Amino acid sequence: MSQVVIVYHSGYGHTQRIAECMAEASGAQLIAINPEGQLLDTDWEILAAADAIIFGAPTYMGSPSWQFKRFSEASSKPWFKQLWLDKVFGGFTVSASLNGDKQVSLISMQTLASQHGGIWVSLGMLPSNHSAATRQDINNLGGSVGLLIQAPSDAGADAIPQGDIETARRYACRIASIADRLRS
Amino acid sequence: MSQVVIVYHSGYGHTQRIAECMAEASGAQLIAINPEGQLLDTDWEILAAADAIIFGAPTYMGSPSWQFKRFSEASSKPWFKQLWLDKVFGGFTVSASLNGDKQVSLISMQTLASQHGGIWVSLGMLPSNHSAATRQDINNLGGSVGLLIQAPSDAGADAIPQGDIETARRYACRIASIADRLRS
Amino acid sequence: MSQVVIVYHSGYGHTQRIAECMAEASGAQLIAINPEGQLLDTDWEILAAADAIIFGAPTYMGSPSWQFKRFSEASSKPWFKQLWLDKVFGGFTVSASLNGDKQVSLISMQTLASQHGGIWVSLGMLPSNHSAATRQDINNLGGSVGLLIQAPSDAGADAIPQGDIETARRYACRIASIADRLRS
Amino acid sequence: MSQVVIVYHSGYGHTQRIAECMAEASGAQLIAINPEGQLLDTDWEILAAADAIIFGAPTYMGSPSWQFKRFSEASSKPWFKQLWLDKVFGGFTVSASLNGDKQVSLISMQTLASQHGGIWVSLGMLPSNHSAATRQDINNLGGSVGLLIQAPSDAGADAIPQGDIETARRYACRIASIADRLRS
Repeated sequence: MSQVVIVYHSGYGHTQRIAECMAEASGAQLIAINPEGQLLDTDWEILAAADAIIFGAPTYMGSPSWQFKRFSEASSKPWFKQLWLDKVFGGFTVSASLNGDKQVSLISMQTLASQHGGIWVSLGMLPSNHSAATRQDINNLGGSVGLLIQAPSDAGADAIPQGDIETARRYACRIASIADRLRS
Repeated sequence: MSQVVIVYHSGYGHTQRIAECMAEASGAQLIAINPEGQLLDTDWEILAAADAIIFGAPTYMGSPSWQFKRFSEASSKPWFKQLWLDKVFGGFTVSASLNGDKQVSLISMQTLASQHGGIWVSLGMLPSNHSAATRQDINNLGGSVGLLIQAPSDAGADAIPQGDIETARRYACRIASIADRLRS
Repeated sequence: MSQVVIVYHSGYGHTQRIAECMAEASGAQLIAINPEGQLLDTDWEILAAADAIIFGAPTYMGSPSWQFKRFSEASSKPWFKQLWLDKVFGGFTVSASLNGDKQVSLISMQTLASQHGGIWVSLGMLPSNHSAATRQDINNLGGSVGLLIQAPSDAGADAIPQGDIETARRYACRIASIADRLRS
Repeated sequence: MSQVVIVYHSGYGHTQRIAECMAEASGAQLIAINPEGQLLDTDWEILAAADAIIFGAPTYMGSPSWQFKRFSEASSKPWFKQLWLDKVFGGFTVSASLNGDKQVSLISMQTLASQHGGIWVSLGMLPSNHSAATRQDINNLGGSVGLLIQAPSDAGADAIPQGDIETARRYACRIASIADRLRS
């Protein structure tokens, strides 16, 4: 079995809830980036040993939170030794708007994974976008590069629609499955 | 008064409907890219004389339609003479999914405008993303770089929510107003 | 052994030269998109049977050529049947400028691969960017998401620097190797 | 005369040098983001009063530095009051590679400006990309959305080619000139 690690920063609990759902579904390990954008030394060892790394962060003002960015820059240390080369990567982001420039965050995460020489796993689920579609459907937001999550600006993490939650669970399992195939 | 021109390609009528609503609201002139991705010679003269150019195209497979792309490449002729330098630009795109990689289309349009040395006008409307928000609200999709329009995959142009229509009308007026200010 | 297919559009021969170098190095099969943006029926069958697909196109006015875009839209047919789901993907683009918005083309290609539910292989080579670096070095342009190729605007395909050629050869082999690992 | 403000974060002095050259050429005011990603209260007042804001940051691991990102998030305060609506914006980024994913940083900056409802000024200079082109030419990197600056990874800010410096100076003047036209 491959080892999947979700490394995330959560501002108000939405990103954390999604990370936990993904971990529960896939058996992934969780690493939380702290409010100063830092990890423990042991966290870096876990990341170095991982087969797959999933990035998670809220989208604030059009890109991932600064704490996530600070972590990204600290990853120049494993980059220098090419420790993450050929690892499997995926990513997700949360914001209050249906669109809300979340795509720009995914492009940023996908670029980070590419700088590390990674292999990026797309969402791999058809969009639910017909007339009867609701926010309770799998991939109702219609993402493709990675996982998009939305909850209203005046609500907590429990307001994330069940469809987004289930999309998150499936994406985590998909990444784990690709990592398994690459490992074998 | 500045001259605003909307140059668009429409596959199934959605982009055309939005273009017409924007023209009606702002007094902009319409130029349709034909099914082969071509314009009339007189259309190029109208574009050369415009103060502002608004790009419109559906998002198909993650970027603007090939007919719009063919038009973009034909614009290398005015680019060569720098005829569009310092013009005002904006853009919009339509797809069936709430997200549907529409942002990638806007990035592509904004890049085209930048290659011409243009001045890009953002949407300039706050997103409607609270718990009571509906698709009837202004900027419910939460765009920022340009205008995002969505209608279900199994429905025609008349299924575009009124909120998206009104957002389109206001964006056209906003672009005209910035063009007026730059012209004076 | 996995089957790698390079599907490309070439305007002036640069993209074709790179495609041929990549095929020679990796044993990949070549499919040329014709000047009308079309493929043969048998080409679509080859793509459906491929383990890995590499996209290639010049960057014109900030995004891949319209012929490549037309091919992208025709790929909605295999998309409808999810024939390319879980395939391995990579991409490259050519333009006359060192930057020249090539990144926007790669984002577009990576988004297309993601719409198909693909697995994207990054370039995976460190940039050569120290004081003594030259255009004869591996990854001198400093790409990461995919392969960047540059040749002057007033020169033919034989002016592509040897460093870019060698980067292309290695990227093709890298994609084939990842496809092999996923297949086994 | 319009008031142009350059707000930048510099890690090793390259971004600062460019910011200073731009200020000298255009009469812009400089605001440095500190190593913790913070500004003085008076800096926010200067930004609120500005006609044009130019963003500057190095590209680290594929996006602007975390200090710049922290500043971006702090700008949600003026965003909340829409204090930057209709301001003129531009941006620049520095990295060691010719490409180095600088475009992703510009997309991020342009998105930030758009979230504020801004008007984005493209570089507006033709690329120098013929066979005799050198790094001493105006826009030799071939940027369009904003300003791209490159200096080798093992060299200081004084190794930035004169062509990039002159491109920076002209871009600052261009932004000031557009701001003047909009103000009048």
